[in-house]
This record gives sequence, structure tokens and C-alpha cells, in this order.
Amino acid sequence: MQTEERNARIIARGKALFASIAGEKPTLFNTSSWTGKIMEWSMRNEQFKIQLFRFVDVFPSLKTSEQLTGHIREYFGSEQDMPPVLSSGARMAGMFGTLGGSLLAKLISANIHEMAGQFIIGEQVGAAVRQLGKIRRDGFAAVVDVLGEATLSDEEAEAYIATYQVLLGALEHEQQRWECLRGGVGDPELDWGGSPKVNVSVKPTAIFCMANPQDFEGSVQAILKGIRRICARVVALKGFLCIDMESYRFKDITLEVYRRLKLEYRDYPHIGIVLQAYLRDADRDLADLLSWAVAENIPISVRLVKGAYWDYETVRSAQMGWEIPVRTVKADTDATYERLARMILEQHQICHFACATHNIRSISAVIEIAKELQVPEARFEFQMLYGMAEPVRRAILKETGRVRLYSPYGDMVAGMGYLVRRLLENTSNESFLRQSFSGKARIIERLLEDPAVTFAQEEAVQAGLPNKSDAGHDGLPPFANEPMVDFTRADHRVAFPEAIARLRSQPAGICPLFIGGSDSVTDDRISSRNPAHPSEILGQVCQAGIPEVDCAIRSASDALPAWRDTPHRDRATFLLNAAGIARGRIFDLAATQVLEVGKQWDQAYADVCEAIDFLEYYAREMIRLGVPRRLGAVPGELNHYLYEPKGVAAVIAPWNFPLAISCGMASAAIVSGNTVVFKPSNLSAMVGHHLVDIFREAGLPPGVFNFVPGRGEVIGDFLVEHPDISLVAFTGSMEVGLRIEERAAKIHPGQLNVKKVICEMGGKNAIIIDDDADLDEAVPQLLGSAFGFQGQKCSACSRVIVLDALYDRFVERLVKAARAWRVGPAEDPAFAMGAVVDAAAQKKISEYVSLGRLEGTVLYESPVPQGEGYWVPLTIIGGIRPEHRLAREEIFGPVLAVMRAKDFDQAIEWANCTGFALTGGLFSRSPEHLDRARHAFRVGNLYINRGITGAMVERQPFGGARMSGTGTKAGGPEYLLNFMDPRVVTENTLRRGFAAEEADDKRLG
Amino acid sequence: MQTEERNARIIARGKALFASIAGEKPTLFNTSSWTGKIMEWSMRNEQFKIQLFRFVDVFPSLKTSEQLTGHIREYFGSEQDMPPVLSSGARMAGMFGTLGGSLLAKLISANIHEMAGQFIIGEQVGAAVRQLGKIRRDGFAAVVDVLGEATLSDEEAEAYIATYQVLLGALEHEQQRWECLRGGVGDPELDWGGSPKVNVSVKPTAIFCMANPQDFEGSVQAILKGIRRICARVVALKGFLCIDMESYRFKDITLEVYRRLKLEYRDYPHIGIVLQAYLRDADRDLADLLSWAVAENIPISVRLVKGAYWDYETVRSAQMGWEIPVRTVKADTDATYERLARMILEQHQICHFACATHNIRSISAVIEIAKELQVPEARFEFQMLYGMAEPVRRAILKETGRVRLYSPYGDMVAGMGYLVRRLLENTSNESFLRQSFSGKARIIERLLEDPAVTFAQEEAVQAGLPNKSDAGHDGLPPFANEPMVDFTRADHRVAFPEAIARLRSQPAGICPLFIGGSDSVTDDRISSRNPAHPSEILGQVCQAGIPEVDCAIRSASDALPAWRDTPHRDRATFLLNAAGIARGRIFDLAATQVLEVGKQWDQAYADVCEAIDFLEYYAREMIRLGVPRRLGAVPGELNHYLYEPKGVAAVIAPWNFPLAISCGMASAAIVSGNTVVFKPSNLSAMVGHHLVDIFREAGLPPGVFNFVPGRGEVIGDFLVEHPDISLVAFTGSMEVGLRIEERAAKIHPGQLNVKKVICEMGGKNAIIIDDDADLDEAVPQLLGSAFGFQGQKCSACSRVIVLDALYDRFVERLVKAARAWRVGPAEDPAFAMGAVVDAAAQKKISEYVSLGRLEGTVLYESPVPQGEGYWVPLTIIGGIRPEHRLAREEIFGPVLAVMRAKDFDQAIEWANCTGFALTGGLFSRSPEHLDRARHAFRVGNLYINRGITGAMVERQPFGGARMSGTGTKAGGPEYLLNFMDPRVVTENTLRRGFAAEEADDKRLG
Repeated sequence: MQTEERNARIIARGKALFASIAGEKPTLFNTSSWTGKIMEWSMRNEQFKIQLFRFVDVFPSLKTSEQLTGHIREYFGSEQDMPPVLSSGARMAGMFGTLGGSLLAKLISANIHEMAGQFIIGEQVGAAVRQLGKIRRDGFAAVVDVLGEATLSDEEAEAYIATYQVLLGALEHEQQRWECLRGGVGDPELDWGGSPKVNVSVKPTAIFCMANPQDFEGSVQAILKGIRRICARVVALKGFLCIDMESYRFKDITLEVYRRLKLEYRDYPHIGIVLQAYLRDADRDLADLLSWAVAENIPISVRLVKGAYWDYETVRSAQMGWEIPVRTVKADTDATYERLARMILEQHQICHFACATHNIRSISAVIEIAKELQVPEARFEFQMLYGMAEPVRRAILKETGRVRLYSPYGDMVAGMGYLVRRLLENTSNESFLRQSFSGKARIIERLLEDPAVTFAQEEAVQAGLPNKSDAGHDGLPPFANEPMVDFTRADHRVAFPEAIARLRSQPAGICPLFIGGSDSVTDDRISSRNPAHPSEILGQVCQAGIPEVDCAIRSASDALPAWRDTPHRDRATFLLNAAGIARGRIFDLAATQVLEVGKQWDQAYADVCEAIDFLEYYAREMIRLGVPRRLGAVPGELNHYLYEPKGVAAVIAPWNFPLAISCGMASAAIVSGNTVVFKPSNLSAMVGHHLVDIFREAGLPPGVFNFVPGRGEVIGDFLVEHPDISLVAFTGSMEVGLRIEERAAKIHPGQLNVKKVICEMGGKNAIIIDDDADLDEAVPQLLGSAFGFQGQKCSACSRVIVLDALYDRFVERLVKAARAWRVGPAEDPAFAMGAVVDAAAQKKISEYVSLGRLEGTVLYESPVPQGEGYWVPLTIIGGIRPEHRLAREEIFGPVLAVMRAKDFDQAIEWANCTGFALTGGLFSRSPEHLDRARHAFRVGNLYINRGITGAMVERQPFGGARMSGTGTKAGGPEYLLNFMDPRVVTENTLRRGFAAEEADDKRLG
Repeated sequence: MQTEERNARIIARGKALFASIAGEKPTLFNTSSWTGKIMEWSMRNEQFKIQLFRFVDVFPSLKTSEQLTGHIREYFGSEQDMPPVLSSGARMAGMFGTLGGSLLAKLISANIHEMAGQFIIGEQVGAAVRQLGKIRRDGFAAVVDVLGEATLSDEEAEAYIATYQVLLGALEHEQQRWECLRGGVGDPELDWGGSPKVNVSVKPTAIFCMANPQDFEGSVQAILKGIRRICARVVALKGFLCIDMESYRFKDITLEVYRRLKLEYRDYPHIGIVLQAYLRDADRDLADLLSWAVAENIPISVRLVKGAYWDYETVRSAQMGWEIPVRTVKADTDATYERLARMILEQHQICHFACATHNIRSISAVIEIAKELQVPEARFEFQMLYGMAEPVRRAILKETGRVRLYSPYGDMVAGMGYLVRRLLENTSNESFLRQSFSGKARIIERLLEDPAVTFAQEEAVQAGLPNKSDAGHDGLPPFANEPMVDFTRADHRVAFPEAIARLRSQPAGICPLFIGGSDSVTDDRISSRNPAHPSEILGQVCQAGIPEVDCAIRSASDALPAWRDTPHRDRATFLLNAAGIARGRIFDLAATQVLEVGKQWDQAYADVCEAIDFLEYYAREMIRLGVPRRLGAVPGELNHYLYEPKGVAAVIAPWNFPLAISCGMASAAIVSGNTVVFKPSNLSAMVGHHLVDIFREAGLPPGVFNFVPGRGEVIGDFLVEHPDISLVAFTGSMEVGLRIEERAAKIHPGQLNVKKVICEMGGKNAIIIDDDADLDEAVPQLLGSAFGFQGQKCSACSRVIVLDALYDRFVERLVKAARAWRVGPAEDPAFAMGAVVDAAAQKKISEYVSLGRLEGTVLYESPVPQGEGYWVPLTIIGGIRPEHRLAREEIFGPVLAVMRAKDFDQAIEWANCTGFALTGGLFSRSPEHLDRARHAFRVGNLYINRGITGAMVERQPFGGARMSGTGTKAGGPEYLLNFMDPRVVTENTLRRGFAAEEADDKRLG
């Protein structure tokens, strides 16, 4: 059939369908109800919509009347100020007077429950099953989905599976009583001659809490293990099992789980999967799946949806620097939907099709394509969401007889996420439903247009527009963070083990000093070891003594004049070159960290990304700052503000971010025109030496960057006190930092400058869990912040301060979730936590764990591997009070102190009560508490409703005050200023009464 | 006569005059000459014009062929790159080949000489007199003006007078041979029946080098004394003496000189003065002068000009913050000219009128007004400049018979300033001449319009335009420096002695401490004394001991939490209030400094202005910085960058800028949310206590600002080492500064923060005098920089490095100029230099003078007053080499070391060779050297072709590096950052897959 002809038929059918529902409105848009009014108001008022949706999100966690009343006021203002729509139903009940907070709260609460009830078939299994009977009596089939909180632990996964077992038990019994829905030919025990009466959907991430593409095979195995148990039961009662598709991150895992499961149930046809048309991968994934099914001759079933995580996917990919996995133009998704539907229908013999959409154009297209391809009725059905678009589902039922409602059940807490998604869908400007019921003929015409044509037109318009890309500084593209590793990509997954193997295949070499542009070998050496296998030696690190450091300082001094006078744009170019070199060997640089300091794959990769970010960012910062600024605009004088480097910089780096922090401090010093003597930590000198290679290859002149690993107790003071050193950039412990501050402040004979010390020290960082926190988010973020890289980050969370009301529930979920963290070598992605960096760290941390036993109670202590390795358990200690050492001293290991605060004020007070002020976090959904924390939670980096590690260059400039540092912010817009002195050059341009005019002169008042 | 009728007649006459010169061109616009070509090119190319005029300015000082060749290249590029017009004449001579630098230079040099010759009647008196004869033979009279360098010393003033004596001697003889120009009725020995044949102009500032409205009466007396000698001679030979009007600064002095002179020569009619129509004061000044003449019945003569210092006046007033004294609309000046001309002509019986303009409209108006008022011909004449607008002068001569040419003579060096002014006049877009000879009828119509009408129209247009004033921050007007004291205003001149008398009329009181919002008196007190009269005691300053300082720190700590949390806008408002209070008592604040530290009037006033500037600027800076900035634009997260104060600040201030520096450091600390313990110098505690009054009246909460004068050796270390102090802001000597750096770096038990030290220390500042420097500028600026406030500024010049080629000439002028600086009490404006601050300073400086005698040669040592007072002589010591202590150590007194450098490289090397790097200066007109100095002269504040003291807030942020300070810049855009720690608050705004969109999100790649 010709495209035009088919399209004409589709439009005709669409018009007929629209005609059949003319004048009807879905419940949701019925403005005589509170829900309808609220929806309408939300569509007109974006700010209200945000507040409303956020309030709906927090609503189920509000346990007391005070909490509820307080949050209503915080979100919407006092009753007098809030939009009338919110209190309107209430106000009627209150006879036009004001209601008082408590009555208002009760009424709003009732309304929200009613709103949720619109989309959920019940909170308990009994109610749900009864509602299913009603649905069937109305002529619809159903697919049941169990709403649940995020699965954070094996116990919660187990509970999820158990819920299905209960549900299936109830349905097994109930389905006996259900008559089959009117069918064509086929099995008379099945709906429509082909579909089981019992149909359930399951979510893979609910089945395995540690699902993660980084451990692809482990994740597939674990999910499969759980899903088999549900599947067996479904098959036993001859039901249908659909594996839901969630976010893109788990897509390939889910497809793999589906294929393996199907291989186990080759002949059982009623196991389906969901595909999302909005994904750019969708065509390829569907083609692969269909050819696999054909090749294996395995009957499959596909539910085709548009996709429900668009906001999340676009935001997350922007945050991670990845290509956006979803289509960004609505018409593109709609056109894809029709294209994929056709692909499936063409293979209807092997693939059953569930067309899941409310879009009348898409539905009409499917009906016409099926007709054209003569697809038997039993091979395709229509699915819509319970509670939405009632007129559409009635019309399609009338037309096709085969409509299945997606019917979630479960409790309110879990249901709110689902509710918010549904509200979003219905209020978005692009919502088909919203437009469908506008009642305007012109709009209907447009809704029925061929999306492929619309998309092509939009593309053409876009192509004609000027290029949107920002100019950035000086011809460079603007700064963007280096993309994070993306384990949804198979090439990234294989690159890690390959790089580790490559590294191990090389014999352990000698790591020399680098002074004045040349390698320099010393006899004094120490071994670099893998903390998980200390017998594995990665290299021999030459140790600098005082003569070598002295020589390096001389080299740096000699190189200074020429480097200082190198144009700032050229200095920046060296950094950009270095960034390119690092980018080219990113997996090797990460693999070295995995083995040398025991860092997990993703974190090691992130460290290299951060190093690249520093190079790219500081290069641009110098290009920005390098141009003299005119100050004032008084005629007859030109005042230029410019910068000059401080001189020779000593850069003293820690081992925990072995490339990023070293590279950040060194590159900031270098690009601003200083020359550098770099002392890495001996624990990460192999990684540190990579910096030598990178800068050497980037062509940095000799003497600008010198590398002198050595023992701090031998060379540290000498380096810091040397009169030719003008600047010390240090990141490390408080003890060493304070010693440097004191030593550097002493003026020695012949000293050039008062030394500048840039000092980043430790932290004793707390996360506050407010009583309305979203635990689905808080628990995993907290675990990541506390135990990622074994807690060996100055930003790591070492205290969690939990509000009394939530304490028990929180600790329970936390400890259960922690059990899922397995401890083992970082090179194996199955382990979430590895070994600590050396025996000294192991000893110190173990002592703190012992102390914790005295000061508090051990809530959890993980098992650790036997045999060699610097293992310490993941440890959670409860009952800690502010006066305890565990609440005050930096441990720098995987030990988390849990504190119970009576209220938010106390939580803030405790959070601030250590000598440190580095990072902090707060999980709360109280606007007032968030506002208060912004000011009163006095740390360098405060994170709200997310983890507290992983600061990104430019976005989260990093560093703290008090005993955590001197208020410098690495990766921020003021960082380079620490490395330079500002100068002002003033020229009198008035000569002989004649002043050259400048364009920006302020003349004549 | 009706205005319209008169205007019609003026236009008709103007048209006739234009018609009579149709087709003629002045020499200057004749493009067949090199000058004409150059002028035309300049009019088309602003950048070339600037370079050309600057080159013309430096040209006479280029003594060698190499210098000349070098400067041609630096100004215009190599021969290949320079505009063809510049080398065109030359190229023709060179037969179309390239010429080689030396030949090109010779030809350009010859052309510039020719260009100058156009405007100057001769370099020597003989040639000039001959040229005058020729002028007279052409039918023109002349007024002779002697071009001279700026008068920098009494000797130079004497030489100027002597030149006039020689000139008058020659003219006395010569005039015998001159026939009278055709006259009407009247004295047959006079030109035109009324005008002496000999007519000379003199410049008041050439007669007294220290002329200064601050010492109004002294200036009038000194000028009168010199002018009398010329006048006597002029009267003796029955000539005409005109007193020229120069810049606005000297206008009232000149008018006063004229009146006093006329009172001495009541009946001699041939003494005139110049009035400038472009001055806003012109109507009032003329009216005053005419009524004075009528009242006294003294015949006067006025030459009315438009005014030649427009650029200078507008630039200077903008720089000083004064109202612009000149009219800013050309038509306004032209209309004023006609109005004033009418006023004079109406009083023609008492006032002779010289109409000095080339503007045909103005001339026509004068002719018509004179006709209307029936003014006898002998009572008015026309004046034009020699070398300009030849067709116009011929036409007016033909029309009126009475044209006098303003005829300068003198040497090239002095002549170039005059030449540049003439070139500017002819190339300006608004130039009447330039337009007059365009030959276009439409332009002529417009040139002849009534300027009063044109001006009214322009005013109406301006009034209709939207208000141009910038919005500034948060509704405040943008920052502008507080206007400097303006001694051209009589009210400012009387305010100082009044304020000093007021201060002296109060009994010496007790200056208490101020702690926690209350005064606090101690028994330990020291006397504050006037350094010029140590027996004069200004007050008893209570001394804080350790208990008082401890108490002040506690008060500040207690006040911190509330002050820190006070909204930044409110904190800023306190500063703005304080600024208003200081502004209201500005003369009293300045007078206290005059008596307490011996600061001269203008400098004391400037110190208070700077204090007000700090308050106004830091308030705005905090308003700017107080708003959290979003970083990154990634969707789903909000990163806000904000600041938090460091804590309790110790502010330790010096005595030399007793209000400004104290107020600057304290207000920066306060506005950024810190609380302050302020220790002033005991030498300026009375001034310091004014800050208490100001902040108290501004309503600052108790404890935010505490005042604890005391002995450094008693309380200094305690204050700096106190664990509750988080910040030390210090300005003072290197010795104390370095001690503070060391002490503050030690961490004490219970200490809150690593202390931040903001440290501004000394300088050993050099000015380089390049071999092409403009000595007219360099010498007075150098003296001001070295000896202003007795050299007691960290920015003061204490070394001058002179290039060998100019050394002798420079030193000669310098020493002569220094002799004019009289030393005496600061309260008397007759004295340029006062006493040093105390006996210890006197002793230390005297020791350096003795040392200077050993290391070098005393070139000049001023006399000092006898009797009490901490006097040291103004001292200039030559023969100093870099290794001498006088070249390396800060003296902090009026001692200048002179060094002779062999070339510019050596000068730069010497300039940089001390341990300090605070200020520096360069007088040069070599573009290459200026460029080099910008980078290679490594000081915090480099000043090009101006003095090196008096940095202004916002325009010249102040501070240096090396042993001069830690690279902070007071009054600059980064200063407040030193007082705060940056924080980042990151919020994850993605909840339940729903991210509120921000307007500046970067979405979708």
C-alpha cells in the first residue's frame, strides 16, 4: 500500500474515533472535581505545578497532623496566600470561612488520597483482586503491577517477590471465577482466544538491589534468579509474565534477562518484554530481538510503549555528559512507534504485540497496519493505563474488543512516584491526552498528522537555524565535564579488564624522578603494592632526598622567568594538549588506580575525568583571566587589572585522588605561570608518574614541572621552608596541613615572597536525614557517600544524623541495604567495596572500630575476604553522641557513625559541631529546612537530596573552611586567583591636553 | 531690534563673508602639501591621529637619529606597514623605492618642522620680530606670545620674565620703524587710532611655579609680583599687555591678579584679560568684571575666546569627580559667545573688546551687534591665530580693517604642545574651520544658524531621551569616587581654616576604648600631639591592655552569629549610612589629620574621600557578591556559589592614612559579615576614634566594631595569636607584617580556623625617567610622589632611575623645582611639605640622610623651620647605586635617591631589584618601553606618565607582592573575597523523575 493511502486511512479512522468520544472527558480533566481543578490550575501555573508535584511526592511520608499542616504551609503558604483551588473543596465544606490548618490538612489529605485512588486499583491484594473483577466485568483485561518502594536490599527484593507470590496465589484462585473475554478463534480458556486471564508485570531492579551495568553478568544472573521464581508460578497457573522496562541504564540487562528466561521457557509463549519507542536504540534492539526469536524459533511478546522516563533520561545524560539516549522530538518518538509497530506486526507469527498508548493516531495506525498485514486479532492487543483517558479506552474497546488496563496496586508511599509520573504526563504541554480533549477540530487535525512528516519538517526547520553552540572563550568550545564512564556500553565494560590485564602484563618497572626535563634515578626506592594483594608489586618508586629536591627547586626557579612570560594563551594550550593525551589513555590511567590504590572501576575512571576537567577548566579560566580588565571608566586614564604568577610552587598531593588532585593543583599552578615541584604520595606514585608522561608529551618546557616522590619526614619541611618557594599547594591530612601552614609562614633569609599556602585538609562530614526524607534516595546515596572507595575521601560521609521520628525505619533499611555491599578486590566489579590503602590505614581504622564498640553499638560489620590484603569491614556504629571521638575525629575509612537527633535544630547543631567544615548533606523535603540548611549547615560543600561525594569541576567547586581548609575552591571560578598576584597598570592617556577616547569611557556627567 | 531681524542680518553677512572666500583653502587643508595630506588622513583615521599627535608631542625630545628612527617605527610600524601618506613626500624624494629608516626619519623630521613653522613665527626673537614686520606689512596687527616649557621652578619663572624683557627690548626699538595701521579717529601713534603697536600676552602659571588655588592669596601675590615687572616695561613703551587665561583651576587667581594690577594702573587702558565663553562661569565672571570696572571707573579690555582646554577640563573634572566647568554642547558655547560679546559691546565705553574667533557666524554676529549698538571702531577688534584660516582673516581684514594675529614664538620643544592643540582644533569633527572649507552650501547654512536656537533644540532632544544614568546594583547609583576637594571654590578654601580653628577651640579630651557598644576608659593613657608643634596636645588616648583586648574579642565573638546572619544588603546599608555621616563632617575629619599627623589640606581631604569610597565601594561589592551565583547549567541540579564570613577579624592599622586604611580594612571585614577588633596606631588614635563615632551613629550593632588603641608590644601578639581570631587585616611595616604572618600561622588549642592574614607592608618604589620623558610632567609628578606628606606613604617614590641621556637635564630641573617646595606646618597651605610624624621618625630619617651622604652626594637639602616640631629636610641624594642601602631600604620620609641607568633594560632591572614590589612609575613616550614596563616592571601598582601615589578606590586597587604584601588589592574587585570563605550548595532538583526547569538550564545537546 502507498504511504499516502495508508495515512489517509489512518486519519479517517482517527477522526472516527475522535468523533465517537466527542464531548466526553476523562475523569482527570473533569473540573467539577478537586483533582480536575488542581490539574487545570497546574497546567496554567508552572510554579504551582512544581510545588504540587513535590508535595504529592512527600505526602505519604507525613505521619503526623503537625507534619502535614507544616508542609502544606511550607509548600503553598498560609491559607490566605495559597491558590484558592487548593482549598476550594475544603472551603466549601468549611462554609466559606477559614478552616484552620488542621481541618484544611485533613481535607487536602483526603483529596490527595482520592487523586491517587484514580490510578491505583487498591492498596491491598484483596481490594485489588476485587477491582480486577470489576474491570473485567466492564470488558477490559488487566495487567497487574505491584507498586513498591525502591528495592535497597536483598530482604526488600525478597519481599517484592513474596508479594507476587501472594498476588499470584490470589489470582490463581480468582481466575477460576472469571469468564473469558469475548474472543475470536483460539483457546477458549484464554481471553480473546489467546491471552491468559492472569497477566502480571515485574520490574527487574526490584528483584536485585545491586543491579548495575558495571557488573553486567552479575546483575543478569541475580535478576534472573529472582525472576525465575515468579515465572515458575506464572507458568504454573498459565498466566502471562511481562518484564517491565525501566531506565536506559538497565535496558541491556533487562533484554539479556528476557532472552535467557525465554531460552529456559522456549515454548511457553506468554512471557513478554517492554520496548520503549523513545529510545534511539529502539529500532536496533527490536530488530535484534526479532531476528533472535526467528533464529531460535522462540515465540515472544512485546509491549511497545513510548517511554515514561524522558525527564530523568535527559537530565541524567546531561549530568553525566552522555549522549541523550532518548529522542528529543515528540514526533520522532511517535513516528518510531509506528515504524516499530509495523516491524512487530510483520513478524506476528513469532511475536505477539501489545500496543500500549493512549494516542489515537498511533492506535489508528496500528489498526490499519494490522489490517493491511492481515494480522489475526489474537496476535495483537491494546493496553492503556488504569484511571486515564477513559473515553479513549471505551472507544478502542468498542472498536477492537481487546483492551488491557495496566493496573498498579500497592501502598500509597510507593504509589506516589507512579502518581507523579501520571500527573506529569497529563499536564505536559506536549501531552496527547491533554490536547485530545481540548475539543478543538484544528487540534485534532494536527494530532492525526503523520508524525514522520511532522518530524521531517521539524528537522528541516532546525537545520535552517543558526548553530546554537556557544562560542566559549577565545574560539574554544565552552567547558563541559568529561563524560563519565558508561557501562551501558559494551566497549566500556570490556575496556577495564583489558586495561588491567595490559598493566599486569608489563614487568614492574622503576619509577624515576623527573627534574629539569630529565628522568633521574635514585638508589633509595620503595615498592608500590596492590592493597588487595600486597604481594603484587606494581613498581619501584625512586625516592628523592634533600639534594634532589634542592635541584628540582633550582630547575623550577630557572624555568620561571621564561614560563612566566609565556603568553597565557600558550600556557593554556599546553593544558589542553595534556587533556587530550589523558583522554586518549583514560582506561589505562584508571586501571593503574584500580591496582595501586584499590579504587573501583567507575571511581577510578571518574578520577581521570576530573583530572581532564581540571586541565580543560583551568585552561579556559586562564584564558578568561589572562586578558587585562579595564577598571573604572574615567576618561584620560586606563587602569588595567592583570595577574602575575607567584613563583615556584610546591605541590604536595594525597594518594586518594591520585591523578585528579595532583593534576588539579599542578595544572592550576602551571597555567597561571608558576613552575612546579610536585611531591606525590608514595602510595600513589605510579599514578603520579603518569602526570610526568602527560606533561612531557604535551611539550611542557623543562623545569616547569618537576616530580620528586619521597618520604614526607625527609623532604617535606625542606621543600616547604625553602626560600625560593613562593607557593605551597597541599591536599592531605589536617596534621600535615597545619604543620605546613606554620612552617611556610616563617621567613627565611633571601626569601622572595610571603608564602601562599593553599591547604585542603580533612573532614568529618555529616548527612542529616530529616523526618520527611525520601529513603529510597537517602539510603543508597548515604551508602555510596560513606563507603565508596572504602570511605577514603575527604568528602566521605562519616556521620549520619537521623531525626528521631524516622530513626528506626531508617536504620533498618540502612543496615539491610549495607548487607548487599560485598567487600573484595576493586578489580572485580562484583565488589562494591575494596581494601584500604595500606597496613597503617588498616590498623588505624580497626582501632576506630574498636573504639566505636566502646562508645556506641555496632549495627553492622561486614564480612571481609580471607588471606592477604588490607581489609577492614564496612562498619556501621549506632548510638554515637557529639562528644564521642567517633563523632569528632576523621577516620578516613569505611566507618559510619549513626546519631539520633531529637529535632532538626539539634541535627544542624551536631552537624556543625566538629572542627571541620568540608562537606555535608541533607535529605529532606521540607522547604523550610532546606532553606535553613543552606545558611546554617556551614560546610564548604553542602549537598541537598543527593550524595556528598563526587564534586564536579565547575559545577561543585570543592573545598571547606575551619580545619578543613583555607577556603579555596578547587575547580571553581576563583581557584586560579590563589596562584597569582593581581597587578594594576595605570596609564595617564592625557597628553598635551589630548586624551584618546576609549569606547567604554564614561564621559560628561 | 528684534531677534529674528538681527539674526537674518547676521546670516546675510555671514553668507557674504563665505561668498568672499569661496574656493579658497587654508594652508592646513591644502592636500598638495604633506601637512595637508596628513591632516586629511588624521581626520579619516582616529587611531592614526592619536599616534600622530603623540608622535608630534614626543618629537622635539628625540635628540639622536636612532631615537627618531626608533620612535617612528614604534609609533607607525615599519616603512612597509605605515600609512603611505606618512612616507609619501619622502617616497617621492626616494624615487619610489624604500628609503631606509634614517632617510625616512630625516624627511619626516623636516616635514614636522615645516608643519610647526606654519603656526610659529620664529624660534628666536630676531626671526620673530622680522616676521612681525611682515605681518604688519600684510595689514595685520599682532599679539606676541612666548612659548615655553612648563615653569617648574623660580629660576624658570625668572627666565620666562627675562625672555619678555628681551622681547620688549627688541620691540621697543622695532616699533619705531612700524607705520601705524590705517585708523579712524584717535591717537595717530596707535594702530587703528586706539591700539598700541606692541601687544604681548603673558601666562600667569609661567610666572609662578607653585601657583595653586589651595594657597590662593599666596599665588596671587607671587604672580602679581612677577607680572608687575613685565607690565612696567610694557607701559613704559606704551604697549598692550594681555593676561592669558589658562585652565579653569587658575581662572579666579588670574581674574584677581588682573583686578589688582588694574588697580595699580587705574588709568592705563592697555591692559587686558582673556575670558573663555565655554566656561559655565563665563556670564557671571564677565558681569562681575564689568560692574567692578564701572564701579571703580577703571578702563579694561577683554579678549573673548571660546576656550582651548576642553579635553583637559572635561577629563580632569571627571577624574576628580567635579562638575564639568565647561559647556558640553558646542552650540551652547557659540551662543554664550554672542551673548557675552553683546554684554561687552554694551559697555564699550569702559571695556575694549577683542573678538578672538575664526567662526564666521560669531564674527558676523559681533559686527552686527556692534553696528546696532553703534560701537566706535576703535573700541573693538578681531583676533585670529597665526597660521590658521588664512582666507577668513583676509576676508575679515577686508571687511573691518582690524585683525590682529596671535603670534607665538619660541623653541620647538615648547611649541609642540601648542602645535598639538592647533592640530586637534582643526581635525575635530566639530571644528568650524574644518566644516567651513568643505565647500558645501548646506553645511554653510547650518554653520550660520543661530547657536542659541540650535542649543535650545539640542536641549529639547536630550530632555526627551531616556535617563542615561546607570541602574547600578540593586537600585543604588553605580559607584563613583567621592569628589576631591576643589580649591577653586571659595567655600572649600575657607572650610579648612575654620575646621582647624573649631578643632583647636575644643579642650583636649580623653579618647576612650569602645568595646561591645560602650565606651571604656583606662588609666593608662598617652598624649596625641601635633608633629609641627609637639607641645600642642590633641587628646589623651586610653591604652588597652590584654584584659581589654580579650574582652573586645569576646564581644566580637558574641556579636558574630547575629551579624553573620544579617542579610548582606542590610550590612551594606550600614556602610552606606556611615559614608553619609563621614561625608557630612568631611572637613572636620580632614582637619584632625592636619593637626594629628601633619597632613596637608588636600591630602587630608583625600584620605577622608578614600574612606568614604571604601564604604561606598565595599557596600556595593557585597551587594554584588551576596547574591548566590548558579554554577554550571546542567538540568536537574542547582549549584549555588555563595560566601560566608571568616569570623572575628583583628584590624591593625597604620597612622599615615589614618582614616582611609582603617576604614577600608574594617568596613571590608564588617560588610562581609565578620566582626572586628580594631587597633589603630597610637599616632593617629584621635582620627581612629572618629571611626567609632561614625559606626556608632550608623547604628552598627554592639560588638560588631570594637576599638582598642594600645601599645603594639603589649597587645599585638596577644591579639594576633588569640584562637578566636580568624582573620588579621594589617597594614604597616614589613617587620611587623612578617611577625604577624608567623604568629598567626601557629595553631593554638581550641582555634576555630586557619587564620587568614591580609598583609600590606612597605615599598621601595622607583620611578623611571626614560630618555624621551616629558619633563614638564615628570618633574612635578615626581616631586609630588616623593615628598607629598613628607614621603610618609608606602606608595611614595623613594628612588628615581634616570636614563643617562637625560640625566643632567633632568636633575637640573628637578633640583631647581624642589627649591620651590617650602617646608612648614601643614595647617598653612603655603607650605608644600610638613613635619614628619614623631621624633622616632625624625631620628630614623635623619640617619638615612647621613647614610646618604656617605653612599652618594646630597643634591639638595631644604631648609627647615627653627624651633619645635619633627622637621627633616626635603632631601635629594644623587649617585646612588643598586647595592646601596638607600636603594634598598624603606625610609618612609622625604628622602629621594637618584640613580643613573645606562639604558632602559638596566633601569627596569634596578627598579625590580629590591625585596619590595609595591608601586612604580615610568615617564616615557616610547610605545615599546611602555609595553615592556607593563609586564617587566613587576610591582603591584605601576603608573605610566603620572605620579605613583593617590591610588583611587575601584580605579587603582592598591597593594603589592613580594615583601610589600600578599597580593591583596584594597579597593579592588577581589578584596572582599579575602574576608570570606566561598561555599557551594548543590541541590538535586530531580525528584521522582521530575526536574523543575530553570531558565538558564542547558538542556538537550
